[in-house]
Amino acid sequence: MSQALTLAIDAMGGDSAPAVPVSAALAVLRRQPELEAILVGLPDEIAPLLENRSERLRARVSIQPASQVVAMDEPPGDALRRKKDSSMRVAIDLVHQGRAHACVSAGNTGALMATAKFVLKTLPGVDRPAIISAIPALGGQTLMLDLGANSVCTARQLCEFAVMGSVVACDLHGLSRPRIGLLNIGTEDIKGSSTLKRAHQWLRDSELNYLGFVEGTDIMSGRVDLVVTDGFTGNVALKTIEGTARMLAQVTREEIRRNILSRCMALGAAPLFRSLAARVDPRRYNGASFVGLKGIVIKSHGGADETAFATAIDTAVLELKKGVPTDIGRVMAEQSFPEHSE
Amino acid sequence: MSQALTLAIDAMGGDSAPAVPVSAALAVLRRQPELEAILVGLPDEIAPLLENRSERLRARVSIQPASQVVAMDEPPGDALRRKKDSSMRVAIDLVHQGRAHACVSAGNTGALMATAKFVLKTLPGVDRPAIISAIPALGGQTLMLDLGANSVCTARQLCEFAVMGSVVACDLHGLSRPRIGLLNIGTEDIKGSSTLKRAHQWLRDSELNYLGFVEGTDIMSGRVDLVVTDGFTGNVALKTIEGTARMLAQVTREEIRRNILSRCMALGAAPLFRSLAARVDPRRYNGASFVGLKGIVIKSHGGADETAFATAIDTAVLELKKGVPTDIGRVMAEQSFPEHSE
Repeated sequence: MSQALTLAIDAMGGDSAPAVPVSAALAVLRRQPELEAILVGLPDEIAPLLENRSERLRARVSIQPASQVVAMDEPPGDALRRKKDSSMRVAIDLVHQGRAHACVSAGNTGALMATAKFVLKTLPGVDRPAIISAIPALGGQTLMLDLGANSVCTARQLCEFAVMGSVVACDLHGLSRPRIGLLNIGTEDIKGSSTLKRAHQWLRDSELNYLGFVEGTDIMSGRVDLVVTDGFTGNVALKTIEGTARMLAQVTREEIRRNILSRCMALGAAPLFRSLAARVDPRRYNGASFVGLKGIVIKSHGGADETAFATAIDTAVLELKKGVPTDIGRVMAEQSFPEHSE
Repeated sequence: MSQALTLAIDAMGGDSAPAVPVSAALAVLRRQPELEAILVGLPDEIAPLLENRSERLRARVSIQPASQVVAMDEPPGDALRRKKDSSMRVAIDLVHQGRAHACVSAGNTGALMATAKFVLKTLPGVDRPAIISAIPALGGQTLMLDLGANSVCTARQLCEFAVMGSVVACDLHGLSRPRIGLLNIGTEDIKGSSTLKRAHQWLRDSELNYLGFVEGTDIMSGRVDLVVTDGFTGNVALKTIEGTARMLAQVTREEIRRNILSRCMALGAAPLFRSLAARVDPRRYNGASFVGLKGIVIKSHGGADETAFATAIDTAVLELKKGVPTDIGRVMAEQSFPEHSE
């Protein structure tokens, strides 16, 4: 029992809480016998979801009461100041106290990041934590960061993102020399802001496997393993991918429903459509990591279903087993980027 | 004949020049009898493409010699200084001299914009010209600007983009009160940089039909008719859409080719796949307008085929018939955004 890995699950975050976080946690526990889970939130809402579960499974689950819930549209500062007994705050506190080894939440991203930064603090050498996630790409997947934690970034911060993303690519995707690209609006050296040009120069001089500037088309082309950008651009790009996929799915549905013939054709090709959908199923990519913190915090999409939330938990477990924060701290200490200058 | 609308076609720009620009120009001329075209470039390369064409069609086409060609990767400043007899420069000069009414080029975007700004100048009240294009969206299409002319923008410039985009939406898409969104990483007032917040406030106080902040998911959702953003973000978003669509098309091809059964299913559903592809055919959206200039300049994708290049020419003709630059100048004069402050 001493080797059990314990996860703090924010049971109250996301659109379908607590049903989805609780059922996803139980599903992962069934698959991975070395795990235990602390479900954080309103006991009255969580407890009923544990009824009719096997004794053996329930023995690996506990409930940690938290009386408040952070709303999805609540300003992060307000959540941090006024909700010290929120489910996400208590879950992160458990990680800080060493009672849990990682935290997973589908709650308000800004509040989760503000709380995680405040409670866990950043690793030495890291100026700003960032949000990283895998995105489906040709030939596999691409990691991208920052996805929204830092709207405006300095060259030094972009370089730190490259280091942290590189560690995640090694630990989570098993790559030895992940190929890194810096997102820009052209691949020539003359393109982009002075901040981008400076980061470009520093990354070229670093030990990292830096390939140079990449464009929006390269996020999913498989040309690089890691795309580095500021949180504003990264967030827009991520949501643009989501919007494009959603629009194409809707157009496909409309075309299928157009008439009886198109319905028949779609029915005949159903297995093809199914395998296609499986290839790009966003649930397989759910779970963004907050990197640069002294602890593991994984953010699930607010609209995640059980399968998607379970993927986010799996990411937390993998980061835990690989020791991602320790690795980031170690690799960051080896870097010698110039000091902040803007 | 005095009512003929004359187009200056840069015959040397793009990956398949001069074949594509010339054949596209002739195709549009066949459809629209009131048009004439001046093909600009190397006569030795253009003339052979006019052989075997009908006398009536050839009577509406002339060749304007230009001895230089701007390379796709040439720095805009170099092109502007050193290539004063390039096909794109001569084509824009024709518009400036009043010998042509609009110019279409598939050449180097940065060089084309720098040349257009230098030769044609911006309209009164416009600080910076911008690049605007239609993007397929649920229920129709969305216009977005700036797509890359201005990496960093002031609040005032973003407001000017909203005005110019609004005029294009009225003139080209027949909308009376186009719904405008400002691209951000959240829809709450507290999100984004101070520049975005200031533009948000000014647009809210304006006469425009401004709906507020929108996210990347809304570019294709049909929620707004016009998305306003800086050129860096707009360019990344546009190329991300392109990359996502390309990736999904590639995955579809791979799934179809997987085995004999999947090939048969795809064959059976071929009409469905065809109608789907037609709905989102990028060639139907080719042709980005440079707005804010004293003249019409349309940029075609460098990789455009005849159909796509013809769409870009159609856009030029529509802008010409509607008098887009005149309308932008008039509407811009009615605005009273605060002066530049950053």
